[in-house]
Amino acid sequence: MVKIAIMGYGVVGSGVVEVLLKNKKNITHKAGEPIEISRILDIREFPDSPVAGRFTDNFEDIVNDPDIKIVVETIGGLNPAYDFVRRCLMSGKSVVSSNKELVAAKGDKLLALARERNLNFLFEASVGGGIPILRPLDQCLAANEVFEIAGILNGTTNFVLTKMIHDDISFDDALNLAQRLGYAERDPLADIGGLDACRKICILASLAFGKHVYPEQVHTEGIQNITLEDVKYADKWGGVIKLIGRARKLKDGRLDCIVAPMILPHTSRLAAVNDVFNGILVRGDAIGDVVFYGQGAGKLPTASAVVADIIDEVKHLGARKYLSWEPGGADYVADYHDSKSAMMLRLKCDNTEMFKSKLEDMLGVCESVEFENSPSDELALVTPVITQTRLDEVIGALPDASMISSIRIADL
Amino acid sequence: MVKIAIMGYGVVGSGVVEVLLKNKKNITHKAGEPIEISRILDIREFPDSPVAGRFTDNFEDIVNDPDIKIVVETIGGLNPAYDFVRRCLMSGKSVVSSNKELVAAKGDKLLALARERNLNFLFEASVGGGIPILRPLDQCLAANEVFEIAGILNGTTNFVLTKMIHDDISFDDALNLAQRLGYAERDPLADIGGLDACRKICILASLAFGKHVYPEQVHTEGIQNITLEDVKYADKWGGVIKLIGRARKLKDGRLDCIVAPMILPHTSRLAAVNDVFNGILVRGDAIGDVVFYGQGAGKLPTASAVVADIIDEVKHLGARKYLSWEPGGADYVADYHDSKSAMMLRLKCDNTEMFKSKLEDMLGVCESVEFENSPSDELALVTPVITQTRLDEVIGALPDASMISSIRIADL
Repeated sequence: MVKIAIMGYGVVGSGVVEVLLKNKKNITHKAGEPIEISRILDIREFPDSPVAGRFTDNFEDIVNDPDIKIVVETIGGLNPAYDFVRRCLMSGKSVVSSNKELVAAKGDKLLALARERNLNFLFEASVGGGIPILRPLDQCLAANEVFEIAGILNGTTNFVLTKMIHDDISFDDALNLAQRLGYAERDPLADIGGLDACRKICILASLAFGKHVYPEQVHTEGIQNITLEDVKYADKWGGVIKLIGRARKLKDGRLDCIVAPMILPHTSRLAAVNDVFNGILVRGDAIGDVVFYGQGAGKLPTASAVVADIIDEVKHLGARKYLSWEPGGADYVADYHDSKSAMMLRLKCDNTEMFKSKLEDMLGVCESVEFENSPSDELALVTPVITQTRLDEVIGALPDASMISSIRIADL
Repeated sequence: MVKIAIMGYGVVGSGVVEVLLKNKKNITHKAGEPIEISRILDIREFPDSPVAGRFTDNFEDIVNDPDIKIVVETIGGLNPAYDFVRRCLMSGKSVVSSNKELVAAKGDKLLALARERNLNFLFEASVGGGIPILRPLDQCLAANEVFEIAGILNGTTNFVLTKMIHDDISFDDALNLAQRLGYAERDPLADIGGLDACRKICILASLAFGKHVYPEQVHTEGIQNITLEDVKYADKWGGVIKLIGRARKLKDGRLDCIVAPMILPHTSRLAAVNDVFNGILVRGDAIGDVVFYGQGAGKLPTASAVVADIIDEVKHLGARKYLSWEPGGADYVADYHDSKSAMMLRLKCDNTEMFKSKLEDMLGVCESVEFENSPSDELALVTPVITQTRLDEVIGALPDASMISSIRIADL
């Protein structure tokens, strides 16, 4: 019998309780012994819950209970989660967390603390919800040089973009719909602005390449400026716009890491990942491309990932799992201005033919993109592979046009 | 330093050596200590190989060497692989195998032997080549009641079907092309006839549902009778024909397990798995649908899965991994005649209208499928969900038509 505590009885925390109770028999078999939910930390009381009577609003009841071996953190946010998790590890308890904000900001410190004390700190649910990704990535990494990892990591933005693409609904209306359906928060900025995807690619990149990538190091663009016109031009070119988090290893050992809306050709394995689903692509030297797909959020999928971690920690009490990475460094992530990709540009100008020819003199041959109702004073084209720096230079040197939008083309 | 031996220096075995040497630094880091290839069993000699001098044609050199802790079996086939693996386990060596024929036929016995002796027997490469599937499935299983697992498990047949669907090439020509490209064996029967996919769904079902499913218990149809006309009717209906291995749990605890060509609607996540790629769908109560996608065969992808298992066994020398299942039973797999699905039927008959109306009197409303050049004496339709038994009864009762083909519609 292993006693655990759960901190935070919100959507994920209550889902963890639900899964632990519902699949008790299976879980006991897998873990090798029964798991008892000893304490639940929440400032609210839940008299009708199946675990009523075990609630406490005092963290000290958990951290000072030597019988509790594993603590589950499903509070979310940095504070007080960071302090609580730190103190649990310092008190000799292994920790499972679903908290991407915490892991993306403090993962290296918490992993080091766990390593020093021969404890485990696992967080499968922090990326991709219920999709098993961190363990399989660790496995891919075992025998492969992984050189790139990229994915559709945020369900809310993917739902909004899917509605824009397939149902011709404007960004605002699609976001409204997402909120009505409960897919988007009332304050949707962390999702729409790309921060949630940023935290997740930080976690994936940290694990894949062995050094911590901090969210503030990653150039992050959201989807708030994507219009139905952008969607139509992308379609005409033969692709779809998705919010992509991507990290790839550069030859000098640094990382190219970015979150931005990108145009994926229809042939990409990630192009058909729609609605609130997530898809993650891992590229390794021996394995080639591997894609993981599933529900990236939601109470039960996320809870099922948390429970898998709990079981793993029960099986490894007193034995370290190998999941780990080192602290990062200020120069570890390359300036995004040096990141290379083809770009779809939309420009407003009087003489589109002349402007295109000037642009091609500087950049090389560009592919024009038009659809039936393209405005006559608008030029849309796809550039060769260039850096942001070069694009800024070229556009700066051609003052007789204004940029409507520029969107990267992903080679995924 | 852990000493290992490799039995069989064919495509996979030599790939394992290549990956171990190429990614040595990473692998040592992941395993926690260096891995030395001590012996390689092959009747041939490879004087130019980087491991020349370590070859032996005598199995006794491996099984009797107490310094060898882990043996990799990449011989393939049942004999002598079964005897060799059994003897290695009995001598206290953990084993990694890529051999689906061996695991599908004898997995329960070898897992029991490993369990008794506190050893590990791992075989990630036996299903899905380089795609991490057995470990993630084990993880999904930890917190979920998995109720269905299904997939495109054979790259050769998927290549042939992809060519028929996308390039309008006949079955024979597509198979020829696959052979020329090295995707199909000279004797392609194990692939084309479905046996390879059958072995893989046996392994997946055994792990997913905890009891061994033996290949001879699984009704297996190949793709050899699929014609371009079938492909066109499927397209007209809105789907593609894929060779599917599928296992689902029945309410009475038995399994519905089958390998057959099935029509997948275009909306299915498996419908876009093309060429030699594999895709595997896992359905659980908490997690929902999760899909794993990647190269299901090939030297390096398969070798990378073998190497991941080697590393795991190095990390768990003297400690059991939990991967395991029990022996099966004669009644464990239900008669496929009782398996239910909608069917696409193509029938030759004089009066198609009258025949359809007779059929609908017995089965309920059927959806007609026609395309421009449908022959006038041919009736193609999709039935409601029925059993094979019911279909056979109905067709038997209507002698005035002959069946051209019947293909299941998959709800995947």
